[in-house]
Amino acid sequence: MAEKRPFDVLNNALNSNVLVRLKGNVEVRGTLASFDVHMNLVVENAEELENGETKRKLGTVLLRGDTVVYVSPA
Amino acid sequence: MAEKRPFDVLNNALNSNVLVRLKGNVEVRGTLASFDVHMNLVVENAEELENGETKRKLGTVLLRGDTVVYVSPA
Amino acid sequence: MAEKRPFDVLNNALNSNVLVRLKGNVEVRGTLASFDVHMNLVVENAEELENGETKRKLGTVLLRGDTVVYVSPA
Amino acid sequence: MAEKRPFDVLNNALNSNVLVRLKGNVEVRGTLASFDVHMNLVVENAEELENGETKRKLGTVLLRGDTVVYVSPA
Amino acid sequence: MAEKRPFDVLNNALNSNVLVRLKGNVEVRGTLASFDVHMNLVVENAEELENGETKRKLGTVLLRGDTVVYVSPA
Amino acid sequence: MAEKRPFDVLNNALNSNVLVRLKGNVEVRGTLASFDVHMNLVVENAEELENGETKRKLGTVLLRGDTVVYVSPA
Amino acid sequence: MAEKRPFDVLNNALNSNVLVRLKGNVEVRGTLASFDVHMNLVVENAEELENGETKRKLGTVLLRGDTVVYVSPA
Repeated sequence: MAEKRPFDVLNNALNSNVLVRLKGNVEVRGTLASFDVHMNLVVENAEELENGETKRKLGTVLLRGDTVVYVSPA
Repeated sequence: MAEKRPFDVLNNALNSNVLVRLKGNVEVRGTLASFDVHMNLVVENAEELENGETKRKLGTVLLRGDTVVYVSPA
Repeated sequence: MAEKRPFDVLNNALNSNVLVRLKGNVEVRGTLASFDVHMNLVVENAEELENGETKRKLGTVLLRGDTVVYVSPA
Repeated sequence: MAEKRPFDVLNNALNSNVLVRLKGNVEVRGTLASFDVHMNLVVENAEELENGETKRKLGTVLLRGDTVVYVSPA
Repeated sequence: MAEKRPFDVLNNALNSNVLVRLKGNVEVRGTLASFDVHMNLVVENAEELENGETKRKLGTVLLRGDTVVYVSPA
Repeated sequence: MAEKRPFDVLNNALNSNVLVRLKGNVEVRGTLASFDVHMNLVVENAEELENGETKRKLGTVLLRGDTVVYVSPA
Repeated sequence: MAEKRPFDVLNNALNSNVLVRLKGNVEVRGTLASFDVHMNLVVENAEELENGETKRKLGTVLLRGDTVVYVSPA
C-alpha cells in the first residue's frame, strides 16, 4: 500500500467542494481550484460563512496558507 | 490544460477590483496594482471597509502580505 | 533501549483514534490517517468538538501543523 | 511600461506624508524618512493616532516591519 | 564546571514529572517521555489542568513545541 | 547625501532616551544602551509605563526584538 | 571601550536574580541559571507572579525564548 501524505487530501479534492476554516473564525466553502506547498488555496464559487450560514458570496478567492486551520472535502 | 497555481488569481486580477480581508478584521477594496511573492499587495483607489461600509478612503495603499487572510477579485 | 522521539507518537497512532487540540479552542477527534514533518495531520471520520460535545461531523480533514497545540492518542 | 512592485510605493513616498496602520490598532502619521526590505520604517514628525485623533506626538519613530498592516501615502 | 544549557533541564527531567504551560492558558502535567530540538514534548500519564485542577486525563500526549511557554520539572 | 536606513535611528539614539512600545500594550522608557540586528534592545534606567504613568522601575532591561512595535528617541 | 551587545545583559545576570515577563501576561522571578541564542532561559528558585504577588512556586523552569517580552536583572 502506498504511503499517504497530508497534501494528498488537497490533491484528491481538486475540483470538488471543500470547507476551509481560517484563523479568526472565518469559514469559506466552495470548489477547490488550486493549492501550493504553502497551503495557499484558490476556492471558486466561494461563500464566506458565519455560524454555518452564508454571510457573503466571494466568487473566486485566494486564501493565504498561513491563515488556514483546516480543510475538509465535502 | 495548464496547471493552475494560487498566484494566478493575483496575476489575473491586476488592474481589476479586489476585496482584501486582513487579519484583525480590516477589509480593503480597490484596484490591484501590484503584488510580490510575499503577497504584499498594492491597491489603488482603495477604501477601508467596516461591516461592508466605507470607513475611510486610502487612495494608494501597500498591504503587508503576512496580514492577508484572503484576496477576492470582484 | 531505543531512543524515543516525539513523532513516534504520531507514527504509533496511525489508523488509531486521536484527539487533536488546535489553537483558537478548536478540537477534532477521529482516526489519524497521515502526517508530515510540519505536523500537518489528516484525520478521518473526524468530528469537531465544542466543550467535549460533537459540534460538526467533518469526515476527512487536513489540519494545518502550525495550528496544532497537542495530539493525544485515544 | 515598467513592471510595478509593491515596494515602489515606499520608494515613491520617501519624504512625503504616510499613514501607517500597525497591528493592535495603532496608527502613526508623518513623513516617511527611510525603509528597508523587512518593511521597517522610519517616520519623522510622527503622531500616534487614536480614532483618527492625535494621541501623542512621537517626533522620529522606528516602526518594526512585522507589525505593519498597511502603509498609505497621504 | 561544565557549561549549562537550557535543554539540559529537559534531559534531566526525562522519565520524571513535569508541569508544562502552553499558550492559550492550557496546562499539562505528567511524565516527560521525549523531546526534540523544536521543544516538541511527549508527556505520558498526562492530565490537562484548569486553575490547577484536573480537567481531563490525556494519557500520552504530543505537545507542539511552538505552543510551549514553560516547562518545569516537578 | 548619504542613504538613510531604519537602524540609523537606533544607532543615533545610543545613550539617549527612548520610548519603546511593545506588543501587548507594554511601554518602556529609558536610555538605549545597546541593540542588535534582531532589534533586541537594552534599555537602562528603564521604567515600565501604563497609560503614560510609571508602573514599575526596571533598571536595566533586555527587550526581545520580536515584541517591539516601535522605538522613538525622546 | 568595548562594544556592548544585548545578550551581555544575560551573561552578566547569570546566577543573579532576574524578572522575566512573558507573552500572555505571565511573569517569573528567580535566579538565571542558563540561556541560549534563542533566548531560552532557565530560571531556578522560580516563582510565577500575578500582579506582583507570588502565584506559584515553580522551582526550576525552562522558559521558551519566543515567549519572552523582557528580562530585567534585579
